[in-house]
Amino acid sequence: MDVLVVGSVALDSIETPFGRVTEILGGSATHFSCSARFFADVGLVGVVGTDFPEEHAELLASRSIDLAGLERAEGDTFRWRGYYEYDLNQAHTLETQLNVFEHFHPKLPEEYREAPCVFLGNIDPELQIEVLDQVRSPKLVVCDTMNFWIESKRDALIRMLGRVNIALMNDSEARELCGTYSLLESARKILAWGPSTVILKKGEHGALMFTESTHFSAPAYPLEDIKDPTGAGDSFAGGFVGHLAATQDLSEGNIRRAVIYGSVMASFNVEGFGAQRLASLDAKDVDRRYDGFKGITVFE
Amino acid sequence: MDVLVVGSVALDSIETPFGRVTEILGGSATHFSCSARFFADVGLVGVVGTDFPEEHAELLASRSIDLAGLERAEGDTFRWRGYYEYDLNQAHTLETQLNVFEHFHPKLPEEYREAPCVFLGNIDPELQIEVLDQVRSPKLVVCDTMNFWIESKRDALIRMLGRVNIALMNDSEARELCGTYSLLESARKILAWGPSTVILKKGEHGALMFTESTHFSAPAYPLEDIKDPTGAGDSFAGGFVGHLAATQDLSEGNIRRAVIYGSVMASFNVEGFGAQRLASLDAKDVDRRYDGFKGITVFE
Repeated sequence: MDVLVVGSVALDSIETPFGRVTEILGGSATHFSCSARFFADVGLVGVVGTDFPEEHAELLASRSIDLAGLERAEGDTFRWRGYYEYDLNQAHTLETQLNVFEHFHPKLPEEYREAPCVFLGNIDPELQIEVLDQVRSPKLVVCDTMNFWIESKRDALIRMLGRVNIALMNDSEARELCGTYSLLESARKILAWGPSTVILKKGEHGALMFTESTHFSAPAYPLEDIKDPTGAGDSFAGGFVGHLAATQDLSEGNIRRAVIYGSVMASFNVEGFGAQRLASLDAKDVDRRYDGFKGITVFE
Repeated sequence: MDVLVVGSVALDSIETPFGRVTEILGGSATHFSCSARFFADVGLVGVVGTDFPEEHAELLASRSIDLAGLERAEGDTFRWRGYYEYDLNQAHTLETQLNVFEHFHPKLPEEYREAPCVFLGNIDPELQIEVLDQVRSPKLVVCDTMNFWIESKRDALIRMLGRVNIALMNDSEARELCGTYSLLESARKILAWGPSTVILKKGEHGALMFTESTHFSAPAYPLEDIKDPTGAGDSFAGGFVGHLAATQDLSEGNIRRAVIYGSVMASFNVEGFGAQRLASLDAKDVDRRYDGFKGITVFE
């Protein structure tokens, strides 16, 4: 296994201006895995309830995602219900049912503890730390987070950041975490807490990469047909971490390429509801769109 | 003269989180000229009142901006008063005094009528058309607009768009004009009205270029120290049109370069209040930042 991911596996009910779906397969670990598996072998750590449809587990397994770390607990699966208006950058939550996620503590199967790459999805930073306490000597640890933890568990979050190589988050989350509108200043603060690279995701405006001395700016792909932005950030993380895991190269040039692979996967993700589009994709589509990104950014 | 610009010359009073200024030299034609003059000879068409401080006219003239088209009318100069909060993408207007601008009709000096390039700043589209009726055979016409005209003079605006080569506007303005959230769809609609290229300015998120068959995405420059975003869009236009006027090359590759020069000039503009930073800049600063843009966008 190349990459271990810990995060949510959920049943999502989503309405966008382009349609509506009920209790489809979602969650950060799901979107991450369905994206990263194009690049590397993925093992998923998470929890579902006894109501979790067998077809969803089969779909993940059929995409070569290792489910040895997916616990089945007594109770119901985590559910999220929300909608988007025309500003697809902004998710509006109608209901969150934590269910089995409320008492979840990640327990890594023995073989997962040797994982060379770890992606910590946007769960409670204390649970992210529990995962780091169980892995032996990962070469690369990447984390995500979200506003809920910034507001409720800031200290644990900053402690967790001290143990990762690369921190990913949304631009608005970085601003909130760092108490400044400037993304450059936010990135500097986050770098000072430990990571050597910070990636700020800006939805339809692309993504920014910061290290202590350099900066990289990647656009989003111009899409004809956006259906549902849910999971775009996790798909980004899947392409990003997947490429780094596959290449085992943490040079700046390769991290830039990883940002583009992340952007590629996010751009596919939003073309369907949930992880539908990622599930139907093939490797050639990924390569073609990577070249497309070159076409829209190059100048002399 | 390489470029004729028509637009406002104003006295701006501005407050941002980083300072406050009263009645400084501003207006779309001012910011455009102070930017474009790094690339080409500029002639300015506009109006000021009898109260317009002589030192402002001297500053423009000292930067080689031709003021033969700057009318002095009885009355007061156009004034704008506004503020920005930490979201510097959003200007809040406190007061607009049209003054001499209310009855302004552009009258081009005879020698301006041969101008090879014309930039129509974001004034009333009927006045923009009056300028086009006075020039003889420009090789390049570029326009800007703003929400006020989209709401009050939509038909004239669309008529004007039918007579320009390249349309510039903000992303939010394109969405409003075209009645869709999708920027790709907005760009297609605008292209159908006449222009062969559409440039959408996204403030801190950079700029997008669309033609019928291609797309280009330019980032904004990551800045340490932003003081005042007023005039950023006009400075962008100045670098963009100035580069095209100087090179007389409308190939796609060169339009891409022009988008980057526009972004360079906008990035300098926001580092000072009004046009102060542009006034103190030298050509080497411009070249250095152009190279800086390459550094933040390149990947293999």
